[in-house]
Amino acid sequence: MMIGSYSFEEFKEKAAAFHGYPAPGLLIGGYMVVAARAGLAEGTLFEVIVETPKCLPDAVQLLTQCSLGNQRLKLVNLGRFALCLFDKFTGLGFRTYLDMDKLGGWPEIRGWFLKLVEKKDQNEERLLAEIEAAGDSICTTLPVQVAKAFLGRSHMKSIARCPLCGEAYPEEDGPACLGCRGEAPYVAGIALNGIATRQEQA
Amino acid sequence: MMIGSYSFEEFKEKAAAFHGYPAPGLLIGGYMVVAARAGLAEGTLFEVIVETPKCLPDAVQLLTQCSLGNQRLKLVNLGRFALCLFDKFTGLGFRTYLDMDKLGGWPEIRGWFLKLVEKKDQNEERLLAEIEAAGDSICTTLPVQVAKAFLGRSHMKSIARCPLCGEAYPEEDGPACLGCRGEAPYVAGIALNGIATRQEQA
Repeated sequence: MMIGSYSFEEFKEKAAAFHGYPAPGLLIGGYMVVAARAGLAEGTLFEVIVETPKCLPDAVQLLTQCSLGNQRLKLVNLGRFALCLFDKFTGLGFRTYLDMDKLGGWPEIRGWFLKLVEKKDQNEERLLAEIEAAGDSICTTLPVQVAKAFLGRSHMKSIARCPLCGEAYPEEDGPACLGCRGEAPYVAGIALNGIATRQEQA
Repeated sequence: MMIGSYSFEEFKEKAAAFHGYPAPGLLIGGYMVVAARAGLAEGTLFEVIVETPKCLPDAVQLLTQCSLGNQRLKLVNLGRFALCLFDKFTGLGFRTYLDMDKLGGWPEIRGWFLKLVEKKDQNEERLLAEIEAAGDSICTTLPVQVAKAFLGRSHMKSIARCPLCGEAYPEEDGPACLGCRGEAPYVAGIALNGIATRQEQA
């Protein structure tokens, strides 16, 4: 079954080039993107929410113009294998999820998705063959209304210099940047860390 | 100045294809990725943290094998125009940021980055010419140690069926999925929403 305008093989190659390998979740994600998009009228300017960081974001980025960096793709991590394409202005959209109740005839997909089979015991060839044969028949798509808080994006009003690290940051974040207020993912005070040195000087 | 193995023009085309248009932040981001990567030994298996969702994630996804969907790219939104490439096992890495103190000779970049010039008054041609001429000379790169909490990724242990929505979710999230516990980005109870209907039945 085609994935949009791509053959399964073509999409596998695109997936491998972008993602590192043609992950099962990314291939299923391809069918999910196409299924959700089919609900939107031609020409709708849409954005996307993915409910897991696993694989689905890359299916979206490969098949649509929505990317993390242009902020038309948002991750709301709910741990569900689902995505939603919605009209960027009205929030009306379609949510597609991989449906546990539709996996009866697909033992390899079921074993992979529900983690019933350890990775080393998976038969990848059979798994990919099932994914191609199943297409979007293992998914359910339903209309949804995206909440207002998730429409549009934040625009920085003005830029300030953080008095601690000296870097530019959005002034509305407060008197110092979030990184200097405990949210930085780095170990502070380590000798090789120039940031810590600058903080000590400040 | 080249962006990795790409000419500026080639990278502009890649940026436009993936991101929708060759955004200034994405082009600068290209130089930043290359600058941070230069600190890592050849062959290091690395991952990336971006400190803003604006443009930088796409520079990473265009120039490295790290993507949101393979979870080698993480967003920690601190509002700073910075990214960090780090050894996935040790957390030692290099952080590159766009440095306010290096923009003196680049009025267009300064006006754009610090939001001193309204978008409609920006001279895009001059801005892009400055970006190409400046390359990574407007950035500062320093070594950092990424905190342990940001190394590796969560692996779901077992999958359960959510008693409310009926979908698969990571059992360790609790007795129901996060979506059914108030974190879903959708308006509940709307007539066209099949999920609400299913919740009422549950």
